[in-house]
Amino acid sequence: MTLTPAGSGALRPVVIGVDVGGTKVMAAEVAIDGTVTRVARRATPGRRVDVALLEDALSEAVLEVADGRRVAGVGLAAAGFVDAAGERVAFAPHLPWRGHQVRARLTDRWGVPVFLDNDANCAARAESAHGSALGAADALVLTLGTGIGGALVVGGALHRGRNGMAGEFGHTRVVPDGRDCECGGHGCWEQYCSGNALVRAARAAMAADGPLASACAGDPAAVTGPMVTDAAHAGDPAALAAYAEIGEWLGIGAANLVACFDPSVVVVGGGVSAAGDLLLEPARAALGRSLVGAPHRVVPPLLRARYGPEAGVVGAADLVREGLGRHARPRA
Amino acid sequence: MTLTPAGSGALRPVVIGVDVGGTKVMAAEVAIDGTVTRVARRATPGRRVDVALLEDALSEAVLEVADGRRVAGVGLAAAGFVDAAGERVAFAPHLPWRGHQVRARLTDRWGVPVFLDNDANCAARAESAHGSALGAADALVLTLGTGIGGALVVGGALHRGRNGMAGEFGHTRVVPDGRDCECGGHGCWEQYCSGNALVRAARAAMAADGPLASACAGDPAAVTGPMVTDAAHAGDPAALAAYAEIGEWLGIGAANLVACFDPSVVVVGGGVSAAGDLLLEPARAALGRSLVGAPHRVVPPLLRARYGPEAGVVGAADLVREGLGRHARPRA
Repeated sequence: MTLTPAGSGALRPVVIGVDVGGTKVMAAEVAIDGTVTRVARRATPGRRVDVALLEDALSEAVLEVADGRRVAGVGLAAAGFVDAAGERVAFAPHLPWRGHQVRARLTDRWGVPVFLDNDANCAARAESAHGSALGAADALVLTLGTGIGGALVVGGALHRGRNGMAGEFGHTRVVPDGRDCECGGHGCWEQYCSGNALVRAARAAMAADGPLASACAGDPAAVTGPMVTDAAHAGDPAALAAYAEIGEWLGIGAANLVACFDPSVVVVGGGVSAAGDLLLEPARAALGRSLVGAPHRVVPPLLRARYGPEAGVVGAADLVREGLGRHARPRA
Repeated sequence: MTLTPAGSGALRPVVIGVDVGGTKVMAAEVAIDGTVTRVARRATPGRRVDVALLEDALSEAVLEVADGRRVAGVGLAAAGFVDAAGERVAFAPHLPWRGHQVRARLTDRWGVPVFLDNDANCAARAESAHGSALGAADALVLTLGTGIGGALVVGGALHRGRNGMAGEFGHTRVVPDGRDCECGGHGCWEQYCSGNALVRAARAAMAADGPLASACAGDPAAVTGPMVTDAAHAGDPAALAAYAEIGEWLGIGAANLVACFDPSVVVVGGGVSAAGDLLLEPARAALGRSLVGAPHRVVPPLLRARYGPEAGVVGAADLVREGLGRHARPRA
């Protein structure tokens, strides 16, 4: 037992959220209002290592945040497929877990309650409890990073599905015989609307000079997402065109999802959303144009997420509070 | 007051479901196990007439079914957009209601409790309570007729959404710049996967002779859905190819929806589903091929609906029982 559990006499024990990403681990103390008050980071040891190495890194980060204080519980937001019961990581492309009983393993190791969900669901929990989806019974939360993370809130609760795999919006097919996708499919939405798609579009449109060409020293292969964002803010036409293209696809895909779910709000987070209205304005226009029955309905607002990189830890901490029943919300 | 309400002394009052379709009205007494025990039909007076004409037709059918007995309530399954509260028909392409307070109007007229939802949601209620989705907490129910009706069951309850417009799966865009749709969009799923799409495909592929050519006397414009179904059962190559094409699109679209919701089951009803495995086998194959993460998940079964044309009246009757609280199910 390496953490001090919250005993009956404990005054405000710490709730810790951990984001277990493909490149880094971030652990944080999160207050009940969704504020991050202390953070520790470690590099993710890689996906081909022994799971003990990854779990050691998690333990280091969690112990650093706990700092000897009593801990109510730890929530994990994992970049991978988590089963419907929240016990197991079935598969994670960038992590060594392959069907491991992660919840039981870390509960044993830490001696405090541990809860587990995937990162996109945790981000949605954070936005729903404290962020841009606050007060919406039904919400769609999209996380635009390398690909598209997605989650669906129904009646105030995360909808996880039969396999815990609901929300894989990025792998809906939007173009027959379209671009190859890492999932093995073709024409998946995230091949047209994601950080990767943004960089691809900017590379294809880059001029011989201008802010983007300067940033990458004229080498299209060197272009990164943040370069495109900076160049777009500096007025670079190729970067602006790339955001317009990605934004258009965001709106078209959002129209598909809104036709299916009819949510009160669509929240967009992740690295790509840092561009704000450069992304969201073309998306809103495309949503309004593409959504079935738009004149007969309230078209949901398309809002930027409150949380950036800390979405996972905040949602993971909410998972602890939900799991411990302190803030469990009835499903209406 | 034209119906006899269920008084406190009433023994098993009648529950009546009414399907208000674009061409006909069907009222039925429905037993608690989902069995239809008495039916009355009327023609739908059309969409340009006074609403009183439509409501007269409904009253005639309901009175015929009630036959002087006490009535617990009447449920209406309407072919149109019903608001989230189940009070109003916002818009219905084939009916004269345009924002009318249908529930209040008919409650006043009949003097018994009246409940209202759209036809696709009622079909899903019927399948969920008594049919192929029985016991599934999360289910997708598709009704393939002229277009695609859709509904989503989450945690055992219909998910209706902010505007009551959830489940418009048929108007998700599956082909950029694709076929024109009546909704004003392009490339909508129902343009590729519906009764209309089936007839279109069969017309395009029809040979100069064979069962389909005989059925339509050689005139492609005369081909109807039932002709294609009969011809497919008789081994007509064009009819079989049409079912294979529609089935493939059914599986691809189902894969998109399953990626989003991760339901336990996908149920397919409506006139087109009468072809059974001619439609469902190619759909199952395409679903298995197209669904993201298929090796890491339980792929939901794609099942034919229990109910045919009576799905609406059965679900409308369930709406009454649900509304009266006699069989309200907790949301988990």
